[in-house]
Formats: sequence, C-alpha cells, structure tokens
Amino acid sequence: MLLESNEQVEQMQAAATKPGSFSREFENRRSAIDAALMQPINVPLPADAGGGYTHEVHKKNYALIRDAGRLYLLSQEKKYADLIRDILTAYAEMYPSLPLHPKQKEQSPGKLFWQSLNEAMWLVYSIQGYDAVKEALTQSERDKIENGVFLPMVKYLSDESPQTFDKIHNHGTWAVAAVGMAGYVLDKPEWVEKSLYGLDKSGKGGFMRQLDELFSPEGYYNEGPYYQRFALLPFVMFAKAVDVNEPDREIFEYRDGILLKAITTTIELSYNGLFFGINDAIKDKGIDTIELVHGVTVAYNKTGEKGLLSIAKIQNQILLTGDGLEVAQALDEGLEEVYPFTSKAYGDGISGDEGALVVLRQNQSSDHQTLVFKATSQGLGHGHFDKLSWLFFNDGKEIVYDYGAARFLNVEAKYGGHYLAENNSYAKQTIAHNTLVVDEISHFNGNTKEGNKYHPEVIFTEFDERLQVSVANMQNAYKDVTFKRTQAMVNSEEGLIFIVDVLDVNANGEHQLDLPVHFNGQFIDTSVDLAAQTTTQKALGDNNGYQHLWLQALGRVKNNLARVTWLQDSTFYSHSTSVTAEKQVEHDLMMVRVGANDPNFNLIAKQALVNRVKASGNVQFLSVLEVHGEYNGSREYTLDSKSSLVSLENTEVDSNEIVRVFKLDFTNDVSYLLALADDAKAHDQETQFSYMGKTFLIKGNAQLIRL
Amino acid sequence: MLLESNEQVEQMQAAATKPGSFSREFENRRSAIDAALMQPINVPLPADAGGGYTHEVHKKNYALIRDAGRLYLLSQEKKYADLIRDILTAYAEMYPSLPLHPKQKEQSPGKLFWQSLNEAMWLVYSIQGYDAVKEALTQSERDKIENGVFLPMVKYLSDESPQTFDKIHNHGTWAVAAVGMAGYVLDKPEWVEKSLYGLDKSGKGGFMRQLDELFSPEGYYNEGPYYQRFALLPFVMFAKAVDVNEPDREIFEYRDGILLKAITTTIELSYNGLFFGINDAIKDKGIDTIELVHGVTVAYNKTGEKGLLSIAKIQNQILLTGDGLEVAQALDEGLEEVYPFTSKAYGDGISGDEGALVVLRQNQSSDHQTLVFKATSQGLGHGHFDKLSWLFFNDGKEIVYDYGAARFLNVEAKYGGHYLAENNSYAKQTIAHNTLVVDEISHFNGNTKEGNKYHPEVIFTEFDERLQVSVANMQNAYKDVTFKRTQAMVNSEEGLIFIVDVLDVNANGEHQLDLPVHFNGQFIDTSVDLAAQTTTQKALGDNNGYQHLWLQALGRVKNNLARVTWLQDSTFYSHSTSVTAEKQVEHDLMMVRVGANDPNFNLIAKQALVNRVKASGNVQFLSVLEVHGEYNGSREYTLDSKSSLVSLENTEVDSNEIVRVFKLDFTNDVSYLLALADDAKAHDQETQFSYMGKTFLIKGNAQLIRL
Repeated sequence: MLLESNEQVEQMQAAATKPGSFSREFENRRSAIDAALMQPINVPLPADAGGGYTHEVHKKNYALIRDAGRLYLLSQEKKYADLIRDILTAYAEMYPSLPLHPKQKEQSPGKLFWQSLNEAMWLVYSIQGYDAVKEALTQSERDKIENGVFLPMVKYLSDESPQTFDKIHNHGTWAVAAVGMAGYVLDKPEWVEKSLYGLDKSGKGGFMRQLDELFSPEGYYNEGPYYQRFALLPFVMFAKAVDVNEPDREIFEYRDGILLKAITTTIELSYNGLFFGINDAIKDKGIDTIELVHGVTVAYNKTGEKGLLSIAKIQNQILLTGDGLEVAQALDEGLEEVYPFTSKAYGDGISGDEGALVVLRQNQSSDHQTLVFKATSQGLGHGHFDKLSWLFFNDGKEIVYDYGAARFLNVEAKYGGHYLAENNSYAKQTIAHNTLVVDEISHFNGNTKEGNKYHPEVIFTEFDERLQVSVANMQNAYKDVTFKRTQAMVNSEEGLIFIVDVLDVNANGEHQLDLPVHFNGQFIDTSVDLAAQTTTQKALGDNNGYQHLWLQALGRVKNNLARVTWLQDSTFYSHSTSVTAEKQVEHDLMMVRVGANDPNFNLIAKQALVNRVKASGNVQFLSVLEVHGEYNGSREYTLDSKSSLVSLENTEVDSNEIVRVFKLDFTNDVSYLLALADDAKAHDQETQFSYMGKTFLIKGNAQLIRL
Repeated sequence: MLLESNEQVEQMQAAATKPGSFSREFENRRSAIDAALMQPINVPLPADAGGGYTHEVHKKNYALIRDAGRLYLLSQEKKYADLIRDILTAYAEMYPSLPLHPKQKEQSPGKLFWQSLNEAMWLVYSIQGYDAVKEALTQSERDKIENGVFLPMVKYLSDESPQTFDKIHNHGTWAVAAVGMAGYVLDKPEWVEKSLYGLDKSGKGGFMRQLDELFSPEGYYNEGPYYQRFALLPFVMFAKAVDVNEPDREIFEYRDGILLKAITTTIELSYNGLFFGINDAIKDKGIDTIELVHGVTVAYNKTGEKGLLSIAKIQNQILLTGDGLEVAQALDEGLEEVYPFTSKAYGDGISGDEGALVVLRQNQSSDHQTLVFKATSQGLGHGHFDKLSWLFFNDGKEIVYDYGAARFLNVEAKYGGHYLAENNSYAKQTIAHNTLVVDEISHFNGNTKEGNKYHPEVIFTEFDERLQVSVANMQNAYKDVTFKRTQAMVNSEEGLIFIVDVLDVNANGEHQLDLPVHFNGQFIDTSVDLAAQTTTQKALGDNNGYQHLWLQALGRVKNNLARVTWLQDSTFYSHSTSVTAEKQVEHDLMMVRVGANDPNFNLIAKQALVNRVKASGNVQFLSVLEVHGEYNGSREYTLDSKSSLVSLENTEVDSNEIVRVFKLDFTNDVSYLLALADDAKAHDQETQFSYMGKTFLIKGNAQLIRL
C-alpha cells in the first residue's frame, strides 16, 4: 500500500470492528460517505475560480475519493470501490480533452482548477483512494482511469510544468508529492525519481532539495508557522509514502531528521494551542489543523514520543491510517505525556544562520509566560517588515500582540476572503509591529525583495531558570540607522515577573524614532500627562500604515519614564520606557487605535502605545514590562494593581567596558542589576565587573544580580 | 445554634473527619486559619475610609471570627475559641469609647467603619463566630465581650440609627439581620422583634416589610441582578437564623415563598454563568458569587431541588454549615441535575405590575439563545435610562450588549474603584442602550427621580417552542413621544433563527429618533453606502452620552433596508432595519465607537450601529436580527456568511384592524407572516384575519405562519 505496511492494514481491519477511538472515527466517516453514496456522481466541466461552484465540487470529490478508499481498505465493502471507480472514470472521460482552466491564475494554471496547486492536491488525495481500491478493479477499468486521468495529469504537473515542479517552494512540494505518490501507486519508479531529484534527476530540483532548503536545521520554515503548517502536509504525506515503499532511502533520517524537526517545530511555534501570529498569519489557526494532525500522527509512528500524544489529544482527530491507529490506541490507553515546550532559538535560513525566531518560555503549564523575539529574516512574500519585533503571551492569551494578516479567510464579503488591501497598507508595515520605525518609513522601505536580501544577526541566546535573554542586531533595515535589541525575561526569586527590553539605535543624522507596543487589554493609567483628542481625532500619518492609526492622545514624558498600565483578563501589565541619547532628549508617548482610513471596517480596532523621539547618534529605548497583580471581579478583590518599578537606568560600571549593566529598582527595596557580557563565548565563561566598589561576576552572557 | 440544628452539628462534626468535599473544605479552611493563628491580634483604632488599611483589617477580622467559629464547631479545638475570645475582647475594650468614624460617609456613618453598612456586616459575621464558641467561654469573658461590643453596637445600629434600621432598602436589611441574629445569640427576643417589625414593632419597618416590598412577586429586585445578588446575603442569613430558631414563623413560606423565589430569580437572571449586565452591573459577576453560594445552599436545604446542585457545582464553593454539608454530600453523590432555565417574565414592583424583565430562552443548553427585554421600571439610583432596551446572547456570549457600569471595581487608579464620572455621562444614558433616543436626550431627561415615577406596561408575553414574543409600552419617557416595542424570537422549523424587533413610535411634532444596536464582533459588511470618516473623526454630539461616541461612518439608506453583518467568534449576525412613517422618510445608518471625550481611557472602545430618522406622527422601526452561518478559521471553511433576509414589511391585511402582521421573505422561497393579536386575553383564544385572499388564525397573542 501507499501509506502503510500490510501488517498495519491487517491491524486496522481488526481495530475497525473493536471498540475504541479508531472504530468510532471509522463509523463516523462511514455514515458521512454512505450519505454521499446516495447522491449522483458530479464531475462538472471546470468553470469557476477558487471558492466557486466547480472548484468546490472538485475539492469535495478528491476528499470523497480518499475517504471512500479508506473505508474500502477497512471494510472491503465493494460499494466504496465502485464509488471510486465511477468518479475516477468520469474524470478519465473528461480530463484528456480539457484545455487550461478558463479562470487560470497567474503563471501556473491547472486544468480542473484555476491553479496547478489545486490540481496537485487533487492527485495527492485521489491517488490514495485509487491505491486502496485498484486491486478490486478490472484491468480495463484500471487502464481507463490511469490513461484517462492519472497519466495525463502527471505529465501535465511534471514535464509540462517545470517552472512549478522544479521550484524550491511549497507549491513545488505539492507537485512532486503528487507525481511521486502516483509513481508508487502506478509503479513508475521514473516518476518517483523525478519527484525526488527534479525533472533532470540532477538534484537541483525535487523533494530532496526542498528538504535541504525549505527548512532551517532547526526545522523552521522561512514564512513562519502559519505557512509552515500549510506547507507541511505534502512533505509528510510524500515522505510517509517513500518510507513505506522504499525504506532504504531513510527519508525520515535525512538531514539529521529534518522532517520530524519540521513537525515538532510547527507544534512548538504555538501558545495555548494557537500558532504565533507572525507574518501573514490568520490567528485562529492552531495545532489542531489537519496538516499537523498528519504530522503528529506520522511523527508518533517514527519516534514513539509520548509528548506528541498530548498534542494529538488536543487535536481530537483520528486518521484512518496505520499510523492513525497507533495514535488512537495510545490515546485509548492514556499514554499521553506533557509536550516538552522549552525555550529555543529556531535558526532561520538554510544553514540556520540567517537570524532566528527566539522563543523564551517560563515554564511548562499551558498558561505560562512566553516571549517571542522575531529576529528572523524577511520570510518571502508572506513576511512582514518587522525586524526584531516581539510578542508576549501570558495566562493563555496574547498580551503584546502581532496584528497578523488583514484577512477574513473565506468570508466572501471581505474581498472574497483573500488578503485585504489593508494587509499591505497596514498589517505588513513596520508600525503595525513592536519594533523601531524610522521617519514613519517601514523597514527596507517596505520592499520585500530588498528585505529578502538581509537578515538580523543573533548575538546570543541564554536560557536560565530565572533569566532568559536574547540579543540581536539589525544593520540593514534603514540606510542611516542600525539597531540592536536585547530581550530578557525574568522570573525572580522574589516573585517578580518582568521583561527588560533594550533597543539600542545608532542614527546617522537626526531621525524620528517610533517604538510601538501593541497591547491587548483595557488602559488603566499612565505616568504621562496625556493630552487626549477629545472631540476630534486625526490619522497619525499619511503612509506606511500610519494612515490607519487614530492618534488618541499624546504627551511629553516629563521624568523620562513613560509608564502605561493596562488590565487584560485578571492580570495587570505595566510597560515603562526611558529614552536616552548622546544629546539630552525629551520624548513623547502616544496612544493610538487602529481604524483610520478604513472605510470598509476591514481592520480590527486594536490599540498600541508608541514612544517617539527625535534624535541622532546613539539612542537607547530602555523598557520594562511588568506582569503584576490580580483583578477578581467575581470575588471583588484587586491585588497589586500598581507598577512596582521605581527606577530604571543604564548604569555606568566602574570598570570593564565590555559589559552592559541595567539597574532596576522596585518597591520594597528590591533592586536588580541585569548584567550582560555580549561577547562571552561559553555558558561557563566568567566576566568580572565592579559596581559601587563591589565586584560582580557574569557567568556566560547574562546575569541577574539582586543588590 | 444560630444557623443549624443540633442534629446538623453532629453530622457536620462526623463529616469533617470523613473523605469528601466537606472535609476537604474544612481542611483548606483550617490551614488558612492556622496560619492566621501565628499572627498577633490586630484591632487598630478606626481611621481609614473604604479600601484603606484599618477598613480592610476590620473586614478581615470579622471573616476570621466567623471562620474560626466554624472550625471550633467542627473540631472543638480550644485554640479557635481562644482566638475569637481574644479578638472580640480587644474589640470590647475599644468599642465603647469610639466616636463616630473620622471618615464618616454621608448620612449613615459607623464607628468601626466609615459607614454603618460595614458595621452591620461586622456584626452579622462576628456574631456567628461568637455563637459557635460562647459555650467555651467563662461567664466573665462573655460579659465583657457582650457588654463591650455587642450590646453597644446593637444599640447603635438599631435605636440610634432609625433612619437606616427602619429603611426599606438593602442597607436596612443588613442592619436588621445583624441585630436580629445578635438577638438570637444573646437571647434578646426584643431585638428579634424589632428586626422583624421595625423599631416600633408596628411592621412599618423591619425585615417582614422588606420582604414585602424589596422583591416583586416573582422575586425580582428593582435594581437588577447585580444588586440583587448583593442584597441577597443578609436576607438569606437572617431568614436561616429565624428558621432555625423560630421555625413556627415559617419565614421561608412567607409571601408565597418569596425568599426562595429571590434566590432562584437571581440564578435565572444570568447567561452562561454571568448576570445580565443591566443597570450599574459590573459584568464579570456571576452565579459563583459568595452571596449566591449562600442562597443556593439554603435553598437546596429547603427545597431539595436537584437543579440547584448544578449551580452549586459551578460555584465550586462548599460552606461549612449544616446546609453546606447537605450540598457537599449531594454533589459527592453526583445528584445534580440541569437547572431548568426557562422563558419567563419577571414582574417588577411590589405587585409585579410595574413592568417586567422579560427573558426569552431558546433551549436548555448553556450556549442557547437568550433575549432579554428590559421592560422594567427605573431601578432607583443604580438604574439606567433604558426603557424597552434589549440584550441578546448566543453561543455563550453577549452579542447585543448592554454596556453595564463604567467602573473598575477596586482598581485604585480608576477613581479609587468607585463609579467613574463616565458612568453618569455615558453608561447610564439612553444612547448607551439599545432603545429609542429622541433629540439626543435621555429618557426622563436623565432624571432618576422622574424615572422612578413611571414604568413600562407589558402588554403580553407568549412563549411557544418556535416563537416567543413580548410586547410593552412606554408612555412617559418623553413629553412628546411615546413608544411601544415588540420583541419576537423565532427558531423556525426551517432552521432559521432570527429576532423580529418592532419599535412603534408616536411623535408629536418632528423629532430626531435614534435607535442604536450595540454589538460585539467584527463588522463584515453593510447594505448601506457608508461615507466613512477616514482621516478625521468627530464626536457624535455634545451631551447625554453622545459626546462619548466617535462617528465613524454615515450613510443614507437607499432601499429602506439598512443591513449590517458582523462576525462574533464563529457565528455571523445580520441586523436589518426598515423605517416607515406617515410621511415618506429616508433614514440614515451610522456606525459609532465609544471613546470620545474620554481623556483617561475610562471607557471600553465598543461599537454600535445607529439607525436615525427625523419624522413626526407614527414612525415604525422594523428590524430583524438573523443568527447565521459559521466561520471556522481552524478548518478553513465558512458557511452562510450572508444574510438570507430578502424583504421585510409591515403588511396590510385584508380585514381585521386589531391584528398586526409582518411579512418576512428569506432566500430559498421561505416566507413567514408574524401575526400579532395584542388584545387576545387567553393563550387559546383564536383571532382570524385574511391575507391575500386566504384566512389565517392567530392562536393566543402571536403566530408565526409559513407562507
């Protein structure tokens, strides 16, 4: 079989008749397909674009073919084989005479569908159904189907579409997976070879090169978790087929187990079940998506890692495959263990050295604190102009947010469910993120091609129990301005939870520097005397996303510590920023809300605070985000609703210019030094410095010192 | 004992040593109190106002006294009795010489606290602790405590505070409960008599009169569920004491079981665990509040209704009382049943004829559809100017919302946690609700005293499986304008779920009529060509709440059907309004967002749509809210995102002027007549009318007819 061993098939057939979650899923699926059996077969002439009638019918058909194949495999009931035969025969009668799709999309149209991507998906699923029933068909039935649809479709997707087939891109993965899987089912080793190594079999194109280039060594996919999850499915399905049919290729061991890393990394780029909303992410996608159900199911078969079962349990979807049976039985036995979410830097780029997505996690519970430091490269067309931005999660929710994509998927009234114009005009722009904007212009001047050329450099990451730090540099986002950012998440012995965020800017000439923090929650108060726009408010700017923000209030920061406290659910958050520069500067705090220049209400009316300064030379934004207190509306008490940060400074030390030391004073006489030795090379290297006449040590790159 | 029979005490003592939720709670409480035992006794001289140090210490002390009493009762360990003796002795030494509290609040100051309300609470709790341990004290210890604190405090709260003690108000309930409970414990029948019938024992004041007047016959408390829950506690505790000590008074049978009705009504004025957010409600309060834990516990003891146990299960708090033990044991045995939430009109006023809160519920599941039609009277000082407003809940969430109170309880930065100025300037105003505003002026010109004089008249309510209707009239909210509203919730056999809302206005002279719908969710689209405020936006008005709304967009309604579709979680909602008047009118649709004139960000940036018309004479706003479709971001499909309402009209019938008929056409040729016979007196009365040559019948007041 294409996706399982004969032994697995026998076990599945046995399990289908015994109580358990596998047979429950089998029965559910059977009632759905039995209902479909009552309907006439419907194979319309291709006419409509994505979302349209014929598009949806052909999508439904390939799912039906696959599902009916599973049912035949499990039950051996002829009606399912007949159904597949009849549908595929209808396709076989239509396909050879089809021209390119009338609504062909851009460079790579299909015949059944407007783009060849959908055509490849049709083949990936349909070939699985055919694989399950082909032994039940006569030779002439098989010939008709294979010659009528599979052979010409394979030809169209491979030899006739080299620009897609040989492309190192997830569309290419769907194409090679389709052709390769068809190769196994139709016994055409040549197709498999082309799928693995490109049309010319040189290895310049094909699946192996995709495995080499589309994931970093840590299994990070350049476009981020939302697209990683999407790209995962053809990788996993085709690899599974290779593994079953040619185990000697050791596909899952390839590149130090890159496929399994891609699966676990997809899981790990999530918080409380939802993917980090970076780049063009739609934020209600999470680890229960079908692509990751396949990923987790296959990964459990390969590794037996019981942490994967806890993900499968959340997914709550059993696959009717051999690997699906293993997961179902393990869950029935209650074997799941907590998935080991940990702090990690997910290197970006083929060699993992083109920046990284750095994930700092405080502990293992599902509502733990998580800081995501986005020091990745651009992420191609779905990337945002957000170098060295950050996100913060607590208590199960996104607190410091990334807007994600401006898109209402499949909602026709919203531009047909496509990316909205506001995705470019707002969501991708730098001001929509939590990072530096110079002169109201986005990174790389908002040019993706330019952005793809550069990447941040991660200077170090260090993860200790009470202090986790990452530092990265960005040289090329602006012509005249470079910046370096330090993110430290602290969980102190004294019970304080806070983040220290240091943005060091070097500006050649005077520039306007904006540093936004987009937060979810209700504003409580601020240390700044804000002048609110009470009866009229205006858009903050004209371009680069600024035109979509209402300026709600603005105030000059008097004592150089701009604090804003807000409440989200039951927790208070206080964000404080101090700005220093070579020449004495004053800075402004602005409160803004999304929604200007949005006549169709395409944007969500979220909010942000923005610290703004005009300065030149070395400028430092030194910020602290405190997580504090509790609001309990039900039991009517409120604890620690006020920030306990008293002062915050970049402190001069008496010696040693290579260390950076920040002093934080809290109430109750709790003071810390956050000391950083950026250049330390080993975790146990010790760097000495003296402060106020005392000597201190930094072990490794970073140390939190209680004074 | 004050709160339980001797038999109950024995059962509690036995249960405390056996496994179960009662003993778990006992052990939890014991560890908390044992920790407190290590601390020195702290009875400071009264100095601070509510929320301040001495205020909080005295509050903690009375809770400690009560809890330690419970522990002594259960364990008979002397240390708990000693603790109570020592604390109360300290109070006894201080109290006699106390002047009025230095921060005395308004008319009714206390001595320990700034208001006598807190003093009464101190006594209600402390007397329970003393009751539990008094047998363990010597006569001289008892004399000292009783003469030092209880006697003078009772005297102060009763004879010396007639204005509070005899007041028919929840502050009066606390006072009589405190004095009456002390009367039982100190064996002073005179105190009990005064508590029950007023200082002069005439019955003009006191608990019985409060029972007569503070609840409607259906157990509705005039200020709404948020304050009903607050008022409930002294009622329940004192009644329980009366019931235990003088069962012959049959206190729980009084006024047809009014106390039990007050408890169940409090439960029923909630959705998905949270109270309806009407009037000055803080919207995170729900059925798990401690007041209702007492209510449910006592009610279960009196009634044995197993539906109450499902509420107790949600509350997840066991009381260490005799009744608490019964609940604990019943929960341990899994006896809980679904609480029977049903459609009901909760009459307002002493006789239940001063309007009603009409609750329409679609079914029994926790995410069912619920429509709340607020046809109540004003609700005193905590009432809002919201005659004939409505709220709608679906899928576990509030969809058409009431803003509730503008207040962050106990959050010091927000005006000390008190009601914010915006509670008066926005939250109470009519425009903050889903009802008619005339000429940008609130009902009763925003005058509570004026509002208290009038109430709506409920014309009928009728609850059938597929159609639930309520109609009410409001004559006196404006001098020149009267209005009548019809709310019908439909769950049709064809699977359509919608609300028909008919607002019939009679305006003497031309007036501007605004009808807002405050909705939670993301705007999707509208049938109206809106001109959005893209680069500048202004406040909608100057006064009466209008100054707090940003006008985001405005459009003239062209085909007389102003539809707005929004998405909340996974469901779409479409609200359509048609306006007709004697003279042909055109109306406008406005989109507004809360937040103007709010320099301290005290308001939550919620949104509304407003239909506006200038007209005179008879004007009708005919609206439909459809609940439709599904957005599934995780599985990437969207169903029925478009409204299926095709047309909507107030239809002329061929005969019979006493019926009102509305015709609704949906897609797929589904058409309904909603036919109303307002004057029908009985549910089985039949009213005939003819339409398009056919004859139809209305059974009772309302009929939904599929055409």
